Amino acid sequence: MLPTIALLTTGGTIASLQTQSGLAPAMRAQDILDHCPGLQALATVQARDVFSLDSSNIQPEEWQQLAAAVLEAAQDCQGIVITHGTDTMAYSASALSFMLQGLNIPVVFTGSQLPLRHPLSDGPTNLLEAFTVASRAAPGVYVSFHHKVMYGTRAVKLRTLGFDAFDSINAPAVGYFDADGLHLQHEILPCGPGSVSLPSKNTLRMDPRVFLLKLMPGTDPEIFQHIMDAGYHGLVIEAFGLGGLHYIRRNLLDCLTALSERQILTLVTTQCLYEKADFSIYEVGRHVLQSSIYGAHDMTTEATLTKLMWVLGDKSRRLPLLTRCLAHEMVTS
Amino acid sequence: MLPTIALLTTGGTIASLQTQSGLAPAMRAQDILDHCPGLQALATVQARDVFSLDSSNIQPEEWQQLAAAVLEAAQDCQGIVITHGTDTMAYSASALSFMLQGLNIPVVFTGSQLPLRHPLSDGPTNLLEAFTVASRAAPGVYVSFHHKVMYGTRAVKLRTLGFDAFDSINAPAVGYFDADGLHLQHEILPCGPGSVSLPSKNTLRMDPRVFLLKLMPGTDPEIFQHIMDAGYHGLVIEAFGLGGLHYIRRNLLDCLTALSERQILTLVTTQCLYEKADFSIYEVGRHVLQSSIYGAHDMTTEATLTKLMWVLGDKSRRLPLLTRCLAHEMVTS
Repeated sequence: MLPTIALLTTGGTIASLQTQSGLAPAMRAQDILDHCPGLQALATVQARDVFSLDSSNIQPEEWQQLAAAVLEAAQDCQGIVITHGTDTMAYSASALSFMLQGLNIPVVFTGSQLPLRHPLSDGPTNLLEAFTVASRAAPGVYVSFHHKVMYGTRAVKLRTLGFDAFDSINAPAVGYFDADGLHLQHEILPCGPGSVSLPSKNTLRMDPRVFLLKLMPGTDPEIFQHIMDAGYHGLVIEAFGLGGLHYIRRNLLDCLTALSERQILTLVTTQCLYEKADFSIYEVGRHVLQSSIYGAHDMTTEATLTKLMWVLGDKSRRLPLLTRCLAHEMVTS
Repeated sequence: MLPTIALLTTGGTIASLQTQSGLAPAMRAQDILDHCPGLQALATVQARDVFSLDSSNIQPEEWQQLAAAVLEAAQDCQGIVITHGTDTMAYSASALSFMLQGLNIPVVFTGSQLPLRHPLSDGPTNLLEAFTVASRAAPGVYVSFHHKVMYGTRAVKLRTLGFDAFDSINAPAVGYFDADGLHLQHEILPCGPGSVSLPSKNTLRMDPRVFLLKLMPGTDPEIFQHIMDAGYHGLVIEAFGLGGLHYIRRNLLDCLTALSERQILTLVTTQCLYEKADFSIYEVGRHVLQSSIYGAHDMTTEATLTKLMWVLGDKSRRLPLLTRCLAHEMVTS
């Protein structure tokens, strides 16, 4: 008997058609199913259009809407596939990983670099593979793209045009497809405590009042004053190397202390794509440790940002979870 | 007869020693030469300490100082090696690529992931290789690291700990080392017009009043107002995918128009590591083209930012150069 899989559409390149002002999402769930008759052989599909947006337009409010649609659909299916634009898919997949902790079925994001209707589209294969993952993977949130299956918190979009657009950062891929089908490696990374209970409307709460600051040599400390004045609740800093900030002439370390005094929850990560941030090694970094700012360890920027938004969504309860692994997003030593 | 190579030191991990508060740069040029006697077999070395900083502290003012030291040293040597911390080496190498256009000798940045004094250090090999490159490469600014030679404008630090810390982004490496020595591939990318004349104090002028904004889903448009109010002269936006920005609920496209009206020079690049930004493909991006903001093509963020600072250093003369390739930093179609 075929598994029941819910298909939730959100727009994106995969659903785009050529318009006078460029590509724009236009295909509905039923159009997608009609275009990929092979899906019927894999699952009984329950399709629903959640929204129809270029993913550059998908923001925390859409994550809420999408996560709520997942909770609803999850009541009578064995897995969920979400079609989504590639540009912010890694952010959405990370966000839903935190919002949907404890969900007892797999949720699989996919999309494509060329529209489904394009003769050379990667969409049909990505869809078929995502349905296969949704039928067989352990509960959790994944990105399935170009024969590769990644945890939602580990996926990063690395290529603007190449079909192999995503990679799993600081963690091996969870699975891959070859001519022998899907090969899944379960529990390759600790999942953390997770929730014992199923997610609910309450667990979806996020606070989008977070600023993302990528440092550059010469970053003016005035931006920190602005972040405090403008009422942001959280800050993610993409620092240099293992977590360095400059402190001569433009003293950013003093700014961190001020942020800390103002209770602005700050996570420092690295602007290097690979490997962890670690304050403890260099003199420049040790100052940071003293001002009680958190390090992001080996989390991607996408995971760091969405985890911070999720923690801030119910800060008093969730703050102790900030430094723990919740959805395969980090390895702490 | 051995070539004369100038060694300019700036600090960094390579010159670091263990102190009570972590690793800090402490070795001088002469200490470095004493530690690597093999260098004497490759070149007659003229050593000079320019400054001694963790590279997280190296900012546009240090680029000026370093570039001026290069101009001075260049008068009586055949090549220059600069030892530098890895954290901001890609920024410094990009900055000097623009500042030193037209220089008639090679300038080679190197450093290490472990201090020279550490028994497992990559420093000695990186130094010996950098001296070899400085003796044989065409004029230009390079990063030489872990058997790989990259244009200064193409190098990006990808790893916080791995010895293979840098990669050449959107361009093949210029050269590599194997057991048969150095293999150089000259002119693998167009260099652009460059300067016919040698660089001078005037060509070193940079304007550091640039803001680097990495977008996230939900970026509050208020930051654009702040960038205008705070008196920044330029802006680099790391947008989504090929150059997408959100415009529902939080309208960032309208902000671009406002920036354009205020004459704030803006370059839009992608937050994807690989491949180009290209506004023309998607509906979301086409709006951008209409507001006369520049695309960064296939430039790295480091190159985009330093090129913008350099153009702003003498805006009336250099603005026409913004969209041209000056130092292998981009390929325009």
